[in-house]
Amino acid sequence: MKNIGFIGIGVMGASMVRNLLKQGFSVSVYNRTRAKAEALQKDGAVVCDSIKDCIQNKDAVITMIGYPKDIEEVYFSDHGIIANAPQHAYLIDMTTSSPKLAERIYEEAKAKGLKALDAPVSGGDIGAKNATLAIMVGGDEDAFDACQDIFKAMGKNIVYEGKAGAGQHVKMANQIVVAANTTGVCEAISYCKAMGIDPETMLKTIETGAAASWQVSNNGPKMCANDFAPGFFIKHFVKDMKIALEECQNKNIQLPVLEKVYSIYQEMEDSKQGELGTQAIISKYSK
Amino acid sequence: MKNIGFIGIGVMGASMVRNLLKQGFSVSVYNRTRAKAEALQKDGAVVCDSIKDCIQNKDAVITMIGYPKDIEEVYFSDHGIIANAPQHAYLIDMTTSSPKLAERIYEEAKAKGLKALDAPVSGGDIGAKNATLAIMVGGDEDAFDACQDIFKAMGKNIVYEGKAGAGQHVKMANQIVVAANTTGVCEAISYCKAMGIDPETMLKTIETGAAASWQVSNNGPKMCANDFAPGFFIKHFVKDMKIALEECQNKNIQLPVLEKVYSIYQEMEDSKQGELGTQAIISKYSK
Repeated sequence: MKNIGFIGIGVMGASMVRNLLKQGFSVSVYNRTRAKAEALQKDGAVVCDSIKDCIQNKDAVITMIGYPKDIEEVYFSDHGIIANAPQHAYLIDMTTSSPKLAERIYEEAKAKGLKALDAPVSGGDIGAKNATLAIMVGGDEDAFDACQDIFKAMGKNIVYEGKAGAGQHVKMANQIVVAANTTGVCEAISYCKAMGIDPETMLKTIETGAAASWQVSNNGPKMCANDFAPGFFIKHFVKDMKIALEECQNKNIQLPVLEKVYSIYQEMEDSKQGELGTQAIISKYSK
Repeated sequence: MKNIGFIGIGVMGASMVRNLLKQGFSVSVYNRTRAKAEALQKDGAVVCDSIKDCIQNKDAVITMIGYPKDIEEVYFSDHGIIANAPQHAYLIDMTTSSPKLAERIYEEAKAKGLKALDAPVSGGDIGAKNATLAIMVGGDEDAFDACQDIFKAMGKNIVYEGKAGAGQHVKMANQIVVAANTTGVCEAISYCKAMGIDPETMLKTIETGAAASWQVSNNGPKMCANDFAPGFFIKHFVKDMKIALEECQNKNIQLPVLEKVYSIYQEMEDSKQGELGTQAIISKYSK
C-alpha cells in the first residue's frame, strides 16, 4: 500500500496529499483545474492529465471532490474510476456525500473486485493541514484495516462506523450537531446585541460550562467581528444539510431544528452568499 | 463581609452554602421547607424561621430561589428582604430570573440605600458542589468588586457583565446556546438510530471536531442510555427559555431555533415531564 492516486485538489485535498507524501507514500494527483494539482509538484506529487493516468497501477485511489454529481461522474463514467481501476485497488471517497451514493459505489466496485470505503472527514482546513482530521469510515472492516496507514497519515480520530454508507451517515450526524450549535451561538450573540450586552464578554463567560462548544469558541468571535471569511463554505453546508434531510425523508423522520437551520442557510445561498463562511449567518439576524 | 444570609436551600443552594462555610463565612439560612435548611446545621449554618431573622445584621444576602414570582415575594413583600435588610447590605440574587425583575430589585434596593447584584450561575449541581460555577454578574461595578470573596467561594469563572440585569441577560444567552446544542445532539442521535448507525460510536467520533460541545459529551451518552435522571430539570429550562423569549418580544427580535426548541420542551412540560432532565427530549424523537 504505497502508491496512491488522489483526485480532487482543493484546499482540503492539497493538505491531505502533502501529509501522505510526508509519510512516504507515492502520490499521483488529478484535478479538473490542472493548476491546483501542479502546486503539489514541488512537494513530490506526480501530476496527471486524466483520471485513468492518475489511478494506473495504484494500490488505493482517494477522492475529495465537491458535489454528489461530480462524484458520480468520477466514479461511474467510462473514463472514471470503476471502469479503469487496477484489480484489487481500494477506492476511498473522502468527500462528504450521500450515504446512498456511497452504497452504490460500494456495490459497483464490489462487482468489479474492488473494495470501496466511504471516509468523510471533520476538522476543516486546519485539521487537514495538521493531519488531525476525524475520519469516519464505512464499508468492509477488513478494507478499513488495510487502509489504516493511509488514514493515519491524514487524521487522528479514525473510526470504523459500519457498513457502506455508515461513514457518510456519521458525517451527517456531525453536520446536524454543527447546524444547531452554529445557529445557537448566532442567536445568543443576536440576543446580547439587542439587549445592549457585550457579546464577546458573554462568549468568554459561557465557554466553560454547559454551553461550551467548538462553535462558541471558534465561530463566536468571528460572528462578533463580522469576519465572514470562509473556514467552511455556506454552499457546502447547504449541500450537507440537504443530503441529511433527504435521508430523513426516506426514513420518515423529522428533525425540526435541522429543517429550520437549513431554511436559513438556503436563503443565504439563494441570495448569493454561498461563498461566505457559515458564521455569516449572524448577518441574517442583525438589523 | 463575613456575615451572610442565604435564602433558598435547594440542591444548588445547599452546595453553595457549604462552600461559603468552608471559606470561613458565617451563614444563616432560610428555606420555605425548613427540613432542607436543617440539613446544613451540621456544616455550621444557623437555621432561621423567617427571612427577617435570616438577614438581620448581615453584610450580604444571597437568594437562590425558584421562579420569578417567588423572587418577587422574597424581595418585595412586607416580610421580605428589601423592607427588612440592614443598611448598606449587598443583595445578591443568584437565581436564574428575568432581567426586568433584576432591574426592579436594583432600583428598589437603591432607593433604600442597598446595593443589589444579579448573579446567576452556570455549571449545575456539579459546579455548585465543586465551587466551579460560572457566575455572570450585573449591577454596579463597585458592588461587584466588594463581593469578590463571596463569589470566589462558590465559583471560578466570575465575570462582570454590565449594569443591573446584565448578569441575567448573559445567563439567557447561555441558555439559548444550551437549547440549540441539546437539541442538536438529540437530532443527531435520532438520525443515527433511524439509519441503523450506532449513536455511541458516532458521539465518540464527533466530539473532537467542529461538532464538539459539552452537550455532546455529557448529555449525549445519557440520551443513548435513556437515562433521564435530572441534571437540569425540564421545568426550569422552560422557565428560562420563556424569559428569554419575552425579552426578545420586548425588543422585537426573532430567534427561530430558540422558539422551536422552546415549543418542544413546553409540550413535554405540559405532558407532565417537567421533572425529567433536559436530555429526555430524545423521547420526543424516538418512535
